[in-house]
Amino acid sequence: MHDIALGVKVLARNEEIAARNRKELKDRGIFTINIISAPGSGKTSIVERTVELLKGSMNIAVIEGDIQTDLDAVRISKHGIPVKQINTGRSCHLDAHMIEHSLPWLFEQGKTDLLIIENVGNMVCPAEYDLGEDLKVAVMSVTEGEDKPLKYPSLFSSAQYLLMNKVDLVKYTSFDIEKAEKNALSINPRLRIIRTSCVDGTGLEEWTKELKTLA
Amino acid sequence: MHDIALGVKVLARNEEIAARNRKELKDRGIFTINIISAPGSGKTSIVERTVELLKGSMNIAVIEGDIQTDLDAVRISKHGIPVKQINTGRSCHLDAHMIEHSLPWLFEQGKTDLLIIENVGNMVCPAEYDLGEDLKVAVMSVTEGEDKPLKYPSLFSSAQYLLMNKVDLVKYTSFDIEKAEKNALSINPRLRIIRTSCVDGTGLEEWTKELKTLA
Repeated sequence: MHDIALGVKVLARNEEIAARNRKELKDRGIFTINIISAPGSGKTSIVERTVELLKGSMNIAVIEGDIQTDLDAVRISKHGIPVKQINTGRSCHLDAHMIEHSLPWLFEQGKTDLLIIENVGNMVCPAEYDLGEDLKVAVMSVTEGEDKPLKYPSLFSSAQYLLMNKVDLVKYTSFDIEKAEKNALSINPRLRIIRTSCVDGTGLEEWTKELKTLA
Repeated sequence: MHDIALGVKVLARNEEIAARNRKELKDRGIFTINIISAPGSGKTSIVERTVELLKGSMNIAVIEGDIQTDLDAVRISKHGIPVKQINTGRSCHLDAHMIEHSLPWLFEQGKTDLLIIENVGNMVCPAEYDLGEDLKVAVMSVTEGEDKPLKYPSLFSSAQYLLMNKVDLVKYTSFDIEKAEKNALSINPRLRIIRTSCVDGTGLEEWTKELKTLA
């Protein structure tokens, strides 16, 4: 976004729609989370494991954001819950307007307790666009760098949760997990950090238990 | 970018400036590469190892693109070559205009044979913005997913090289490297793929040898 005045206008319009989405979702008792990370940090696996652990006790629906393809929606649909794919085309993030257009579909699915939105793989712009969610969840993997929270502060300052993912791989890397977490907390001291692995299951009980309490 | 007409106009303007940059760089005998990947795929390590292997035989300068911080420029400057940090603020990619503004700095550094531009960590928008480079180099790591080329086709179709990075970690993951490469070639059959690791050095001689031949 090169024109700052235009950027501010687009974001202000997005905020308005996000506020409407938030009210509509809340009125129907739907708790909504927006999951954001770089491509390849393991968002879709996190969504799959979250669905597996919670679908017995909650009604869950998923919205998948991707530039192209429905690969993620296909993965999620195998878990037998409603899933909708949004292809953003050239847009590198979901916005509130796209979610607004998906609400009629969502409301047709019957009672939903938890809506999981998986954003486009990108640490920059998705952090700027409120979708109307209750909780913003950042994911980073231990194969990235410890400096990511410093380099992409907008995501880490606006998220309430950070899932430090793929911790099963940390022993094969020089990644300093304490340093990465310290960097994240220097940007946002209230960030709740949970170390997770979708391979060996680390942290997933803890994450889903907390999510269930919130939802 | 929500307004498609505006997006087309911005990109057309970018193309004009990129063409000017390309001519100015070519006139001075500078070969330019633009390295693009998700955050955490190992771009900065690739730049460091490329500089180490080539600085004895070529004059190299580096431009580092980041939303915030000069962490990458500090890393590169330890190798004793000219480096300039561009902080893009809210913009999720470098554009030709930012590079144009850095050319006077570059031309003050004396004779340069190779300019390495490390773009902002993002697989989406950087692929759309020509900077005036001779070569676009995509990097992905084996800890991401095999489906990345399908999900982010613009990058893989516009790049000439793909460095499949962090191959030292592949044995600890379920990543299918042949499948990932097949996906990349389905998007762009002419893509030259080199498997690399900045930990054990795999592929770096091959990569820098080819780069030196091109530059």
